[in-house]
This record gives sequence, C-alpha cells and structure tokens, in this order.
Amino acid sequence: MRDITVFSGSAHPDLAEEICKHLGTPLHPVQVHRFANDVLEVQLQANCRERDVFLIQPLVPPVQEHLVELLLMLDAARGASAARTTVVLPHYAYARSDKKDAPRISIGGRLVADLMVAAGASRVLAMTLHSPQVHGFFSIPVDHLHALRELAAHFNRYDLGNTVVVSPDLGNAKEAAHFARLLGTDVAMGAKQRFPDDRVVISSVIGDVAGKDVIILDDEIAKGSTVLELLDRLREHKVRSVRVACTHGLFSSGAIERLSARPEVEEIVCTNTVPPPPDAGDKLTVLSIAPALAEAMRRIHDGESVSALFSTS
Amino acid sequence: MRDITVFSGSAHPDLAEEICKHLGTPLHPVQVHRFANDVLEVQLQANCRERDVFLIQPLVPPVQEHLVELLLMLDAARGASAARTTVVLPHYAYARSDKKDAPRISIGGRLVADLMVAAGASRVLAMTLHSPQVHGFFSIPVDHLHALRELAAHFNRYDLGNTVVVSPDLGNAKEAAHFARLLGTDVAMGAKQRFPDDRVVISSVIGDVAGKDVIILDDEIAKGSTVLELLDRLREHKVRSVRVACTHGLFSSGAIERLSARPEVEEIVCTNTVPPPPDAGDKLTVLSIAPALAEAMRRIHDGESVSALFSTS
Amino acid sequence: MRDITVFSGSAHPDLAEEICKHLGTPLHPVQVHRFANDVLEVQLQANCRERDVFLIQPLVPPVQEHLVELLLMLDAARGASAARTTVVLPHYAYARSDKKDAPRISIGGRLVADLMVAAGASRVLAMTLHSPQVHGFFSIPVDHLHALRELAAHFNRYDLGNTVVVSPDLGNAKEAAHFARLLGTDVAMGAKQRFPDDRVVISSVIGDVAGKDVIILDDEIAKGSTVLELLDRLREHKVRSVRVACTHGLFSSGAIERLSARPEVEEIVCTNTVPPPPDAGDKLTVLSIAPALAEAMRRIHDGESVSALFSTS
Amino acid sequence: MRDITVFSGSAHPDLAEEICKHLGTPLHPVQVHRFANDVLEVQLQANCRERDVFLIQPLVPPVQEHLVELLLMLDAARGASAARTTVVLPHYAYARSDKKDAPRISIGGRLVADLMVAAGASRVLAMTLHSPQVHGFFSIPVDHLHALRELAAHFNRYDLGNTVVVSPDLGNAKEAAHFARLLGTDVAMGAKQRFPDDRVVISSVIGDVAGKDVIILDDEIAKGSTVLELLDRLREHKVRSVRVACTHGLFSSGAIERLSARPEVEEIVCTNTVPPPPDAGDKLTVLSIAPALAEAMRRIHDGESVSALFSTS
Amino acid sequence: MRDITVFSGSAHPDLAEEICKHLGTPLHPVQVHRFANDVLEVQLQANCRERDVFLIQPLVPPVQEHLVELLLMLDAARGASAARTTVVLPHYAYARSDKKDAPRISIGGRLVADLMVAAGASRVLAMTLHSPQVHGFFSIPVDHLHALRELAAHFNRYDLGNTVVVSPDLGNAKEAAHFARLLGTDVAMGAKQRFPDDRVVISSVIGDVAGKDVIILDDEIAKGSTVLELLDRLREHKVRSVRVACTHGLFSSGAIERLSARPEVEEIVCTNTVPPPPDAGDKLTVLSIAPALAEAMRRIHDGESVSALFSTS
Amino acid sequence: MRDITVFSGSAHPDLAEEICKHLGTPLHPVQVHRFANDVLEVQLQANCRERDVFLIQPLVPPVQEHLVELLLMLDAARGASAARTTVVLPHYAYARSDKKDAPRISIGGRLVADLMVAAGASRVLAMTLHSPQVHGFFSIPVDHLHALRELAAHFNRYDLGNTVVVSPDLGNAKEAAHFARLLGTDVAMGAKQRFPDDRVVISSVIGDVAGKDVIILDDEIAKGSTVLELLDRLREHKVRSVRVACTHGLFSSGAIERLSARPEVEEIVCTNTVPPPPDAGDKLTVLSIAPALAEAMRRIHDGESVSALFSTS
Repeated sequence: MRDITVFSGSAHPDLAEEICKHLGTPLHPVQVHRFANDVLEVQLQANCRERDVFLIQPLVPPVQEHLVELLLMLDAARGASAARTTVVLPHYAYARSDKKDAPRISIGGRLVADLMVAAGASRVLAMTLHSPQVHGFFSIPVDHLHALRELAAHFNRYDLGNTVVVSPDLGNAKEAAHFARLLGTDVAMGAKQRFPDDRVVISSVIGDVAGKDVIILDDEIAKGSTVLELLDRLREHKVRSVRVACTHGLFSSGAIERLSARPEVEEIVCTNTVPPPPDAGDKLTVLSIAPALAEAMRRIHDGESVSALFSTS
Repeated sequence: MRDITVFSGSAHPDLAEEICKHLGTPLHPVQVHRFANDVLEVQLQANCRERDVFLIQPLVPPVQEHLVELLLMLDAARGASAARTTVVLPHYAYARSDKKDAPRISIGGRLVADLMVAAGASRVLAMTLHSPQVHGFFSIPVDHLHALRELAAHFNRYDLGNTVVVSPDLGNAKEAAHFARLLGTDVAMGAKQRFPDDRVVISSVIGDVAGKDVIILDDEIAKGSTVLELLDRLREHKVRSVRVACTHGLFSSGAIERLSARPEVEEIVCTNTVPPPPDAGDKLTVLSIAPALAEAMRRIHDGESVSALFSTS
Repeated sequence: MRDITVFSGSAHPDLAEEICKHLGTPLHPVQVHRFANDVLEVQLQANCRERDVFLIQPLVPPVQEHLVELLLMLDAARGASAARTTVVLPHYAYARSDKKDAPRISIGGRLVADLMVAAGASRVLAMTLHSPQVHGFFSIPVDHLHALRELAAHFNRYDLGNTVVVSPDLGNAKEAAHFARLLGTDVAMGAKQRFPDDRVVISSVIGDVAGKDVIILDDEIAKGSTVLELLDRLREHKVRSVRVACTHGLFSSGAIERLSARPEVEEIVCTNTVPPPPDAGDKLTVLSIAPALAEAMRRIHDGESVSALFSTS
Repeated sequence: MRDITVFSGSAHPDLAEEICKHLGTPLHPVQVHRFANDVLEVQLQANCRERDVFLIQPLVPPVQEHLVELLLMLDAARGASAARTTVVLPHYAYARSDKKDAPRISIGGRLVADLMVAAGASRVLAMTLHSPQVHGFFSIPVDHLHALRELAAHFNRYDLGNTVVVSPDLGNAKEAAHFARLLGTDVAMGAKQRFPDDRVVISSVIGDVAGKDVIILDDEIAKGSTVLELLDRLREHKVRSVRVACTHGLFSSGAIERLSARPEVEEIVCTNTVPPPPDAGDKLTVLSIAPALAEAMRRIHDGESVSALFSTS
Repeated sequence: MRDITVFSGSAHPDLAEEICKHLGTPLHPVQVHRFANDVLEVQLQANCRERDVFLIQPLVPPVQEHLVELLLMLDAARGASAARTTVVLPHYAYARSDKKDAPRISIGGRLVADLMVAAGASRVLAMTLHSPQVHGFFSIPVDHLHALRELAAHFNRYDLGNTVVVSPDLGNAKEAAHFARLLGTDVAMGAKQRFPDDRVVISSVIGDVAGKDVIILDDEIAKGSTVLELLDRLREHKVRSVRVACTHGLFSSGAIERLSARPEVEEIVCTNTVPPPPDAGDKLTVLSIAPALAEAMRRIHDGESVSALFSTS
Repeated sequence: MRDITVFSGSAHPDLAEEICKHLGTPLHPVQVHRFANDVLEVQLQANCRERDVFLIQPLVPPVQEHLVELLLMLDAARGASAARTTVVLPHYAYARSDKKDAPRISIGGRLVADLMVAAGASRVLAMTLHSPQVHGFFSIPVDHLHALRELAAHFNRYDLGNTVVVSPDLGNAKEAAHFARLLGTDVAMGAKQRFPDDRVVISSVIGDVAGKDVIILDDEIAKGSTVLELLDRLREHKVRSVRVACTHGLFSSGAIERLSARPEVEEIVCTNTVPPPPDAGDKLTVLSIAPALAEAMRRIHDGESVSALFSTS
C-alpha cells in the first residue's frame, strides 16, 4: 500500500508529534511563509505523490489563521498529487455554528466543511463534534471519534455512588445522558433563558442534584461563562462537590483560573484535542487522545474498521 | 415579475388546494403515469417556462413513492424551463435520519437533500424539521417555518397556571423549552434508556410533573409508542391531566385510537402538514398551517422577508 | 488488490446468492430498518473501508422502494469509505423513460442515473438496457451486457429453418434484427398506431410471417399487452407456431397465465435478471444470467477487459 | 424583460440573418481571430451584460473548427455576464455518436453536450436530433424541434394515394412511421447487414414497396451511400417513383450529383439547417426552417410554451 | 429591476461609505459576532431576498480574518436568497500567489477564487490584479478595473519631458510600459537576482535612467523593501528625482516613513483600495478610486457595459 | 502497481514513439474514424481498465482537430474505466490566450483546461507554458516541465563571454532573465508599441546589446514576425551575431526559411515538443525532450518526485 505521510499545521504541533510517535512514522515539516502583505504560502516539505497524506490541524485560536493555513495545505497536497488527503480535525470549532437561529446568518459549520472539500480534502477524522448532525454537513467520509471513553475511564476510578452528570445546556442533554450511562449515574441539566435585553442565563436546573457529587460535562469550554453560572445554580441546590469535564479545553480569557478559584470545584478534566493552557494550576488534568487518533489513522490507512474500535455504546 | 405556478404531488392535495385558495392562484394538475413495470412518469400540466414554480409534497407514507414522484416533478420542471423551483416540504420525513449513530448507515436527511438538488430544486420551504441542524444539510436556501406559533395560540386559550410542557425525549428538550417559554410554563422531559436487548424505554422523567396539567410536545407522532410510554411514566408521577401536541400528526398503526383510549388524555392537537387521520374521534384537533405556508410562498415570490414574519422568539 | 465485497438489496436476493456462489465470495447482509414514519435506514453489515464494493439491485416492483433503498445503500457505502462502489443493475426499469415525447415530462432514465451518481455510485453494470443510448445517460463508466447470447444459445438447439424473429415494436427493430442474425433467421416487426382516443394498437406486421415459426423478442415483458396484441395479428397472418423471448420477465398482472393460455405459444423464455414469477406453469423457461454477471464482476474487480468476453457480434 | 441579443458563428451566417429578419432584431457580429499558432480567439461585438444571448451555430464541416468556435463564444458570453446563453443548434452532428457499440470508443453526443455546459451554455434549441434519446444527454433544458411538419407540408401538396415512406435503416423506423402517419401513407424500411469483412449493406426491404411511389426519409444525408444502396434495392422491387427527403442535407462528396443522376429520383427535399450545396441542380428543393427557429427563439425569450406550437402528433 | 443592496465587511468601511455616497444608496450594517472559541458568525442586517447584493471587502491585513469574514458574508447572502452576490474586491492580496515556482506549494490566488465561488459568489469586481492572468483563475465573471487611469491623470499635471517610468521587477514590466505609454515617456526596469543564500537583490537596472526624473510604478507596496533597493540602484545611476506610485498602498512596517526619509523621493502616490496609513506625512498623496468602483457597480447593476468606460488603452 | 498504458493522438506520433522507447513500453494504437458528416469517433485499441493511462497530444495545427480528438480520447479512456488518465501536453497552444485584454473575448487557456477536466483528465504533464500562471488555470494536478535545461546544455558548449540573452517581448522578460542566469550572461529585451492603426512593432531594445553575441529566446515561434522585427532592431544596434532559441518551434508560413535567410543568424534551436519542420535547412538544430518527458511519466507512474529532477534554478 502507498505510504502514510503526516504533516502538521501550526495549530498544535505537540499533538501531531505525539500521534506520530504512536504511529512510528515521522512528522514532516511544513513551511508557512507570510508575505509582506499578510498573505500565507504553504510548502509541504516531503514528497506527497501517490501518498496517503494526513494533515493535523485543530481549529484553535487564532481560528481564521489556522483555517486558511489548513486550506492552503490541502491545496498544496492536491497540487502535489497526494493519493488521498485526510484532515485530522481534533477540534472543529466551526461545528458550533450549526443552525440558523436568526435570519441572514451564516451556517459556518456547513460552509467550512464545503471549503475543505473545495480545497481538496478527501476525508475527515473529527473528535466530539458539537452536535452529531454536523457529521452530515460533510459531503466526504467522516470518522467521528468521541473522547467520552477516555473521560469515562478517568472518572470510573472514583466512587460514583452519589454522583450525577449535569449538562449546562439542554442542547447537550443527550450527550450527558450517554456519559451518565457509561458511568452508571443519573443525569440532570441546566435550562437557559434569554431575557428581553438578550442576556442568556441558566434559570433552573432540571433533575435532582441536591447533596450530590456533580460531574459537569460539556463538549467545549472556552470562556467558561456558562459553567460558572451553572456553578452558581448548583451551589443554590447545595451540591456536595463538583468536577468539571470537557473534551475541548480551550480555557480562554482566564477561564481556568476562574474555575479553579471556586472551592467546590475539585478537578477540571479535559483532553489535548487543543493545546492545554500554560500554568494551569493543579486542579487541571489533561488526558491524551493521541493514542486514539493514532489508532484511527492507522486503521484508516490500513482499511480496517474504525467504528469497531471506538464504539462507546 | 414572473408568475407563480403551483403544482401538488399526490401526497397531500387537500393542503395544496387550501394553500392555493389563500394565495388566490390556481392549483395546476400533475399527471402521474405508472408504467406496467412500476416506473413513474410525471407530466406537469401547465406552462412552466420562466415561471416561479412551487411543488407541494410532504414526504408522508408511502414515503418512497412520494419522494421519487417529487424528484420526477423537479426534473420535469427543470426540463420545462422553470425560472425557479421551490419545494414546499411541510413534512420532511427523512430529517429523522440526521446522524450516524451506528457504523455503515446512511444519513438519509443529507442524502435526500442532495437528491432534491440533483433533481433540480432551487430552494426549499420546510416546516418543523426534526432538528434545526438539518437546515445545514441543504446546499440551497431553506426557509424553515415552525408550527409552534399556531400550537401556542391554541393552548394560550386555556388556563395554563398549573401546566408543564414535557418532551418525551432529551433530543427534543430545547424545542420543548422554547414552547414552554411561549406559554409561560415550566418544562420537563423523559430520559430514554437502551437495554442490552436493544429495547429502548423511557426510564425516568427529569423535572417536576407531579399533580401538573401536562402538555406533551413532540415534532412528529407516528406509531405513538414513545408518547404512550411517557403516559405510563406520567401516570406514575400522578399528573392531573394530559394534552398531546405535535406538528406532524402521522398517527399510523392505530396511534390515534390508542392515545384517545387513555382517559387522562384530554386532547390531541396536531397540524395539517400531513393528511389528518380519517375517523379520528373527537379528541383530535387539527390546526391548519396553510395560511402560514401560503404567506411564506407569497413572500418568497415577492422577495419580501420571510423571517420577519414567522419569528417565534 | 483490495477485496471484493458484495451486498444485495431486498429486490432479488436469490440472484445475488447465485452470483456470489459463482464468485466464491460471501454475500454480506444488509439491514433495512423502516421507521414508524416509513423512512428507510440502511446498514451495510460488513466492513467497506477501502473495499471494492458491489451492490446488486434490479429495479423491480415496488420500484420506488427498491430505488430509494439502493440510493441509501450507496450513501452508506460512501460514508463507510468504500474504495469504489459498483451498482449491479440487472434490470434498469427507468431506462424505459428515455425521451421527452410529450411536453413537461420527466426523463426518468437520465434523472435516476444522476441520482445514483449523487448518492455515490462509481460505476454501473447493467443488462439489456431498453435502448443503447441510455448508456450515455450515465456520467460514470457503464458495462452494458446483453442476454442475447444466452437467449440465442437456448434457441439454437431448435431447428430454425422456418423461423422468423418478430419485434412487437419498431423501436426494438434493430435489436430484433441483431438477434435474428445470431440465429440466422429473417426478421419482421409490428407497427403501432395511436388512435385519437389515445389507444395504441399494433395495426400491421411489416415483413413476412405467414406460415412461419415465430420467435417474438422483446427486452422486457410486464403486463404483456403488446405481445398479446401481436399474437392476435400473427394469428391473422396464420403463423405456424410462436415462442416468446425476453430478457426481463416481469410478468405482472397475470401476464404469464394469459400468454400461456394461448395455444399457439409453445414456450416463453426469459432470464432471471428479475425474480421469476411463482407458479409460472410449464411453458416458462428461465435462463440464468448469474454466470455472466459474476464473470463481469470478476473482470471489473481484476481489471480485465469485459467487452472482450461478452461481445455478441 | 432583458433584451434578446443574437450572434452567429461562422458555420451558417445566412440562416442566422434569416432568423434575425424574422425576429426583427439585429444580428451582432463576432470577430474570430486566428493566432499564428492556429489558436482561435473569439470576441462578441455587442454588449452581453444581463442580455438574453442566443448563439447560432450548426455543427457542419469543418465540425471541429465550428465546435471549438462555439465553445469559445459560450465562454466569451459567460465572461461578458450574459444573463442566459442559448445555443441554437440547427444541426447537432455529434448526435450520431449516441451509443457505445464497440469497446473503448467515445460517446461524442454525450461528451459534446457536457462540453457545451462546461463552456457556459444555459440551454439548447436543437432540430431533428439523430435519436430522441440524445435529448437526455443534456443536463440543461433542451427545446427539440422537428422539421417533419415542414417536410409534411411540402409533400401533402402531392397526390399520395400510392405512396409509401421508406426508412433506409431500422434505427430510423419509428421516425419514418411517424412521418407516414402525418402523410396518411404506409411505411417500409431497409434492413442492413454487416459482413465479415465489415462491409455494411442493405440486404432487404421489409414491407411492401413494389409499384409504389416511394418517399425515402432520413434525418441526415452526407455522402448518401446508404440512400444510393436503398435505391438499388427499391429498383429490384420495381417501385414506380422515388422522392428523397431529409432534414439535414449535408450532401458531401458529390452526393447531390450522384442522387440527381438516378432517373427514378424525381425530387430531393431538405431544409436549410445546414448551408445548402452550391449549384445543386433543379431536383433539389430546400425548405426554410428559419421561421420555426425564430418563433421558438421568440417564445423562449418571452417565456411562452414552445411545445404547444411545434407538436406534430 | 431588483434593488441594489450594499454591505461592507470590516476591512475598509470608509471606502464602502464613500462608494455608497456616490451610488446614492445606503450602506447596510453587518454584525460580526466572535464566539468565545474565536469562531465568527456574520449577520447581514438588511433583507437580501431577490436583491442584487454587493459585498465590499479588500483583503487587507489581517488578511485571513477578512477572508473568512467575507466567505461567511457570502454564505449568509446565499442562505438569505440574494438574487446575485458580487464581491467587490478592491485589493485581492492572494493574487500575489499566482504560480507554482517551488514544489508542493499552494497557488493561493486560484484556491481563494475557488473558495469564494464555493461560498456563493456570483461575480467579482476587482482592481489592479497582480498579474492579468489571475482573471482566469475565477470560474465566474470578473470585472477587472485598473487604477492606471487615475494615476496617469495625477502625473499628467506635471512636466514629464525628462521622465522615465521604472518597474522594480521584470514581472511588472509590461504594466509599467503600458503606464509609460499613457504618460508619453520611456520605460526601464530593475532585474532581480537570487543569491545562493536565498537573498534576492536588484542587481541591475535595464534601460536609460541617468539624469532622469523617475516614476517608480508597482502594483502594491507593503514593506517597501524592493522599492528601497531600487532607490539605491537609481541613486548609483544618478537620477534627478523620484516619485513613487502604486495602486495598493499597504505601507506596512513603517514603509511610508522609510520611503519618505529618502531625500530624492518627492512624492508617494497611491489609491484608497486599502485603508491609507495614518499620520503618513506630507509626501503621500492618496487618490480615490471610489468613483470608479461606484460607477462600475452601477453599470453592473443596470446591465451596461463596464469595459466601455474603463478602457485605458 | 497498475500498468502504464500509453496512447498517442494523431498530432505527433514520432514523439510518442520516442517517449515509449525510453520508457520501454509499447505505444498502443488509436483508431480515429471520421464519419461522412465530419464527426470524429475515437477507439483506444488496448485495454484501459484500471490502467494508468497516458495520452500524448501536443496541440499543434490543425489545433481544433487535435483538441477535439484529445477530448474524445479522454472520454473513451474514462468510459473504458481507466484508473487515471494523464494528458501529456508537450505544447499547450491555448496557453497563449491567458488574459482578457479586450472586452467580451474568450480566455481560451482557462476554457480548454476546463474542457479537458470535463472530458475526464485526471492530471496534466505540460512543457514551457506561455506564462507560469497558466498552471493555475487547471483544477487538476499539473507537472510543468521546462526545456530551459536542454536549451542551456546546448548553448553552454559555446564561449558565452560576450553574450546577451534577448527577449523579444517584455512579457517574456522574466523567463529570459532566468535563462540568462543559467548561462551566466546579461539580459535585454524588446519593447513593443501598438500604433493607432493597431499595428504592433518593437519600438526599442531595453538593455545593452551593441557588439554582442545575441541569443534570442522565446517560448514559441510560429510565423516568426516578432523575431524578424527584433532582428531588424538588433541590426541597428550592430550586434555581432545572433542565435535564435525557442521551446516550441512551430515555424509556420515559411518562418524557418525567412529566419535562415538572415545572414547574422548563425543557428536556430528548438525542441521536438511539436513536429519539426520538414526540409528545414542546416541552420536548424532540434533538441529532443523525449527523455525528459519519459522520465517525468515514469516518476508520475511510480509516485516519485518530479520536481526534484527537473528543477532548473
């Protein structure tokens, strides 16, 4: 079979290195040149001809820079006669923009999927998309992994007898219920309300949480405002302890500090789909999904079933 | 401006007639010929050349027959030089198939969207899609209406002081919360559990329902099994009364009879996005969305804002 | 080379089994789930990743069900990363709809070809298309086999000294002449006339048939009305005997009984491109084209010439 | 409505002039520049912006020059922001190449249709395509006119009491039968046979022709070899007289002289879809289809039904 | 005709305002929301339905932000049923990346053109593309204006008797010669050389410049390194005076200060295709191309010839 | 790996033979049939199924015939299930038409690139395109070789101490400068001027040429008018000697005789990308690029880097 050839954009080279170590294959360099007029030019620095090319690039901030860089890498791989180009997208930030809840807005999750195809993507390997329907935004095959397995393995080491999984949002309720089943716990969720002045607050918690050990689960934590608000509500319900879990730990604008400052928060758990925050303090635990991504890439390359391996149900 | 020209497939001619009455425009006939080998041939029986053509066809059972008929109508309109062809899709049954929750399955919601485009659709007018992300499955403009406004108007005539809206499913929780806000009530929801033998049951109700007047809200009721199961759970929680509401009232396999037989069910409310069941009994109330669809079609034709009108937030 | 992986839709599993026996490869199961709202969901139950996938599905009644099922299978195979997906289409019913002989009608033969491509078909293996131009409706490679070789082998066992091949229709005249050359006989044909009341009858037979042993050849027999009418005309010309031959023996609406009831009809011969009628009586002979399709599939998979083998000229 | 703007390629400017006279619109000039290296560059010499552009170009010899010129004109119209570009194709020579009757050959009729779309064609107005299925080769709307109406009007002035229409080929039999119905006469046809040395001859005439006044009908006559051979066969059947009719009278390689030299040929009738042969002698009658094409173009521009007008059934 | 509706991205609102003033049409607001995870969402805040939409956005730094914003605006306009969407691209930064002069690099100029089409662009209005071939990178109609007319009008006010136009680069030589013809002067040019250590320097000036008044012409000046180097060479040739002219005056990294500091530089002239540098000093003259763009937009909207107006030859 | 299978169109069979000799692979025959109506039909006379097909066809006069023949060959290869089809295009004549320098003209270089893709091309191997931007006209991978290496090897055998490379045109100046660097010489260039009567003449030579040994370099010489004019200008500058070099030596309309008749012209050098002129006289030297093309084809087939080999910088 044609060789596997892996490149990383500038978004998360550490993850790419770790994946390549698991694969036992070198990570090839990419030279990104920025012209004086701010235009980017990308050069893949290894032969792509008839190769099975993988481009690793989570869409982390600065998202637009990383997105255009990825599109240029795709174009370069196509022009360089790659046999197949798989985008490894550990974090697809634009999945957030998955519906048209106001008139005349963009649906970025669909648009960016189309842009990747226009630029030459043959397939996508994604992780924990904001909603499972985003899979259907792609006109090319998608392997969609979940980090719930890794997160569940982490929490199953604890005594979960008094635990409830809480989703900060009704939209994520199904995912939280799935996670609760993996842990054998109950589930509850926050309900948001939009005020006339456009403020959105968590007005109530639906389900039993009083006196419980809570695991808050979200797919992505950026500024953390929603989680912080949920913490206020949970405090009102007199929960016993809180742990916070998410797949994509962006923790922008001092989120990790603000979450860590809450005394009831005993632990914050995320994965390395995005670069972990520096100097995060000792409440943060970062789980690596590099082994899972590496194994998926190996199976994609070898034509083995990916779903067989990563099923969490 | 070019004239509006409306055709109806064989799925729901009554609705098409009612829409055309509101529009003050004739409903043009379509001749569907079935060859001896079961192949369909469609003839649009009015000039389409440079016209603004609308094809009305909810995908109700037999879904496959109605889908292929619709695709043939689209092809005929394109071949007949329609200036623009809008599919009016009051019920998009394939929206149910919106994610890949098992390996090697089809995502029918995306596929059928692509088929309509391949057959010549210029745009779609849809109602209450199973999930809002399905909007993003279409590569052509979609106007997505909701029947919540009509349903809310109906229920607001009642005293809702002791009422809670209950979603049978976590996946529909956000929609139910939105409806509850329109009614000024609380919200609760059923949580499903899948057993090792693949049975799925509603294992619990999350949120307060005891002693309440319940309005169960779902987007679509077909066999009604989920609602019937939810009724069992609600009975255990000793609710005071139940009303059942949905947009798409398919009521197949005797669902209307089985629901009506429950003494606590005081009323079943749906709209006419699909043909109402015959001999439904006196518990069923059918609201007409023909005025809403007609007004949306008029605005699409005249280039006026559709979102402005149908906002429910 | 990547493995061959064969699936069958629900249209004609017996043929698929027979083909797989010839290929020495297993027939993998397909699970078709019908939701309560009549929507289909298809799951291919074997790994497709990088496989050379073949989907066997003649478009027999109910045609629309089988067509949509096929499109969903194609979508599932694409989403499951099949390296190549070949539609094996022993009977392409929509080939009948190959021209626009009235205004504002669909050309189903072209539309359905486009739908298969939109759903992910890489190539098609077809048999005895209604007209040879239908080949050009596909934008993907088509291998077009004919069953004339099998039919000719059957009839060449008889004494054909006094025989004439008769086409029921001028549109099929060239095919009939080709078959006559294979048998070394003359050719004649029926000429149809359309009456003001839209009835179509065979008004005359062009060519010598009096006192002859006739072989009626058509590509497909469904209700058999045309053949029955031709039998009336031939009786007027005092033919000596009649045998009826076709590739696609649909025999709907009691066709096989009505044809068998004619005393001058000595034999009815068709192939198993479609499921043979049950309890057909002893006048029917069914020839198997499974060996031909299996050999073509093997050659497609192995990159050998298909045309070289199946030439009948 | 946007204005109509008509250009003619270099294939048949006389016809374009005649059409424009009927339309009462100017024929705008096209400058075709041939570079020293034989590359063509086309300039449309009138504003196309938002105009309803028609490009008139039958594909007559030299076909390749005229085809590439047409494709460049389409590209120029698209680049010049034409609102819509209709190819008026009175003779689509590549329609001859409509099936794959040998391995590894091109299907030019489909390919050239795709090339026109790739170059920017919005729609096509064609006349008497070689087979009606060629309509389905186009992915854009086609208006397909027939010259049979004009030809029938011509012959109906004669006494047709003893007349039979004869097709030189089984493939054209259906068209000949349709023409015979328009004239109220019988129909017959030649049957071709291919010899081991690849010669093709008309081996027999199927149907009654002895003592008849024959009208030979073909869609196109180029070298005329087939018609000349049919004349030999008809002479053997002692026909009384012969008239030859076709839509596309290419008459290459002295065809008109050789046909005129036959004493039994009383008249040769064609239309001006292609430039009539110079010095054709007095047996040739050329009917003009300019009025029909002009009326179709007017109706396409005005959004009126074209089929309504040109139906011959 | 449908109304014109103009929006501006955040790249250069002043230019958009000025254009709209010339057009006498309001500039509609665009709301760009940045999510916590750095994802952008765009909302066009005026009805687009059936409108002739223009989106004004030069690709100035930060280029990637402005590009993705533009793509989202295109997506929003398409989803909002714009009749036609024209991208007004006063500066197309990616045109610089127009060839593959090293292996495995992207050709950004072509890729970004394809991305705009994928996002829904109907046409483009561009100004002074880096090379004229970039026009051919677009699969949609492009109106390509030049600012040479404006620049020539400016310089023609001076006595140009002793003047020579100098291009800093052979690749821009043809453009410089064209400008020299407009001014009635001679032309000269710098020749670059690439050293083994990858440094590129202007090694020589080809053509007569000694004692001349020089006008340096480039399409775009960013850091200004090339122009500064050319100034060194020209000083060696003892030129009398220098004026610097360009269309796109990006002047990044203190370029305007460094150029102004050269005593021989009497004037620096650019246009406002990009936002002029703040506090630029008194050597800078900024010409407005808003009137030209506004007139082109008016003509595009009204279907009048654009080329007729802006010809400079 | 799948086998390499090479076909040649009728444009330059000698080159194809020479390439195949270098590759050690047979050149397979192509049968081009011309119908009586001037339509071409192409048959590839070797199995293409799953093969790595190369079609060799420079677009030399008659260009339109050779272009359409190539498009038909592409269609035939696609229909015959080629795994990949590479167009080997030693001379891409339409690259000349690479910009829109007048209103409403075609951009043939982009259009013909799109036509090749529409007809089924997977990739292109080109040589010395008229401008490097033409690479970006193709949406498929292009390997772009230059003959400068071969030309430089030829001239480096001479003493080049007093030599200057002269481009007849500013548009080719960069290429000439690149060639001069390979030879270690200076560069100069002719500047053209367009007169009011549309005549274009070389009005001046920019750079030092007096007393020099001149090598005129152009990409293509057809009629040779520009070179002849440049010779006049160079004579005025009293150059010592002249050699003429180009990649594509079309030499139409007696160009070779007229160039050879100039006494100062000592040698004319071209390559065999196009068929060399017959009876060219002894001043012409033809270098073979067959080894370079063969090596590139081998590397394309084997998945080795092409750029690595043919770099001239």
